[in-house]
Amino acid sequence: MVANKSSLSVVVLAGGVGAARFLRGLALVNEPRSTTVIVNTGDDTVLHGLNISPDIDTVIYTLGEAIDAQRGWGLTNESWRAMESLKRYAKVRPTNSDAASDWFNLGDQDLATHFYRTARRKEGADASQITGEIAQAWAVEQQIVPMTNQDVATVVELAEDCIAGRAGEKISFQEYFVKYKHGVAVRSIQFVGIENAKPNALPQLKSADAVVIAPSNPIVSVGPIRALGGFDATLAKIKNRVVAISPIVGGRAIKGPADRMLSELGHESSALGIARMYSSIASTLIIDDVDTNLKPAIEELGMRCVVTNTIMSSPQIAGKLARIALGSVLGENQ
Amino acid sequence: MVANKSSLSVVVLAGGVGAARFLRGLALVNEPRSTTVIVNTGDDTVLHGLNISPDIDTVIYTLGEAIDAQRGWGLTNESWRAMESLKRYAKVRPTNSDAASDWFNLGDQDLATHFYRTARRKEGADASQITGEIAQAWAVEQQIVPMTNQDVATVVELAEDCIAGRAGEKISFQEYFVKYKHGVAVRSIQFVGIENAKPNALPQLKSADAVVIAPSNPIVSVGPIRALGGFDATLAKIKNRVVAISPIVGGRAIKGPADRMLSELGHESSALGIARMYSSIASTLIIDDVDTNLKPAIEELGMRCVVTNTIMSSPQIAGKLARIALGSVLGENQ
Repeated sequence: MVANKSSLSVVVLAGGVGAARFLRGLALVNEPRSTTVIVNTGDDTVLHGLNISPDIDTVIYTLGEAIDAQRGWGLTNESWRAMESLKRYAKVRPTNSDAASDWFNLGDQDLATHFYRTARRKEGADASQITGEIAQAWAVEQQIVPMTNQDVATVVELAEDCIAGRAGEKISFQEYFVKYKHGVAVRSIQFVGIENAKPNALPQLKSADAVVIAPSNPIVSVGPIRALGGFDATLAKIKNRVVAISPIVGGRAIKGPADRMLSELGHESSALGIARMYSSIASTLIIDDVDTNLKPAIEELGMRCVVTNTIMSSPQIAGKLARIALGSVLGENQ
Repeated sequence: MVANKSSLSVVVLAGGVGAARFLRGLALVNEPRSTTVIVNTGDDTVLHGLNISPDIDTVIYTLGEAIDAQRGWGLTNESWRAMESLKRYAKVRPTNSDAASDWFNLGDQDLATHFYRTARRKEGADASQITGEIAQAWAVEQQIVPMTNQDVATVVELAEDCIAGRAGEKISFQEYFVKYKHGVAVRSIQFVGIENAKPNALPQLKSADAVVIAPSNPIVSVGPIRALGGFDATLAKIKNRVVAISPIVGGRAIKGPADRMLSELGHESSALGIARMYSSIASTLIIDDVDTNLKPAIEELGMRCVVTNTIMSSPQIAGKLARIALGSVLGENQ
């Protein structure tokens, strides 16, 4: 595939693991330096005083060939001595304290990334700059861009009676995702701070040869990016060059809570449900072979529908998927 | 020594390593629960967004039998993977950035302490409360009290021409002590924030059976404690019950820069110099056998002078020193 690698300006809208896998494939078929990745930062959190950007780190660690393949997050050859040592403090913290919380695992090597991000933020550097520096440290050639330099917090409102006495409680995305292992029904999602957040990389988006919406959670990964002022309108204008890859295969999410979340929030947990969410901003949807039967219904929405293997079990399969994705919207412009 | 352990209310003014060694000895001769340790926090610093209290941690880790005996600071069986991983980021930080600084070593296990302190501070807990919780986590029975709950920063003004172009520059104590390995001449010391800092444990000080000024640096360890409003005046009032142990032996500091710092700031680097600094607040000075010749001059200042072995090469020797220290001021009150 390297022989005829293209040098198209490609923008990818990205969450974490699914997007990272797609990007590794894309790098095999399109010059990494020509790719801009706009990454969700609604999942960002602060733990132990440290600024943590899980999606950005997953993308960078994956492209830096340092991700732990089994876990799908964090670094290879990781150790957990700092976390282990926190247990001593969990025993003495007051009952109303969240200090020494251990539900979000931070590996010893991984900590360096959060130290750097936190220190640079305290020095006044903005998220774009810091992300660029971290990407450079891992020799990542793609432009990795946080969706905004302002703080946006994805907040999950728990559905009634899912945790005793906590109906309607609002918790951070990471609490929902990691602490409660996304096993809690959701009533609504909010992106706190979104109205004051300015989107990054809009110019790259406007002039891109192709825009790919990675197979990420449409609500909590792609959702925050789309909710940024002007973002969805821009996508709608360049819709012909926008292709999405369904994160739902056979009605189920490959990873994470997208399927349940879709159902809980009134969407259909299927590639057709995804098509309905994206038909205003993408001309093309790529769905998995197992969902072939949904093709006619998706086309009825006015979208092109490409059917292929979307299970990225190897970089090569991801590369093939990336080539198909680019081809599907480039054809339109030729 | 355990057979006749006393239960006196003892207050110890403490810096880091020297004080910690003394306290380990004191615990052999006096009930730890009856001991209050007022610890210098002028050395506190923030690195990577984490609140670090080196002297408090040294005291707690030592009394918790977890200190690395070789290094004198940090935990036994420590690893350094987070610090090691920071190197990657030091290569990409802008030239004007201090992020990813690695001059202050933070062990992986040790990090948990800073995580806990930082998280609790963010929750609004004060330094006394947090220190008590950390001490409890290490099963330390002594009352470990930060000198104040307010932030005080010991700032070191560099003497002229010690670092090219940096004459008169003011740096934090940790930069002086760790980054420059206290190898830089000092023009002055300031305790920034001291005027707004309220001393902790003054009541315990007033009612103590005995107060021991540990063999710590009189300028940057005991100095900040003494500089707190009302502290020195209280010591002066109860002077008969106050005994100091000289940190200078044979004209040299056992550890650290006390000897050079004393000279640079116009004091005499000797047990006599120490006597002059403490004669207004302590009735008794304990000096080392090698300094016997200074006894008459110290007594001329109106101080009692006890000569003994002050090199605490074992907890037992420290225990004997502690017994002598207590006895020297208790005799006065009997």
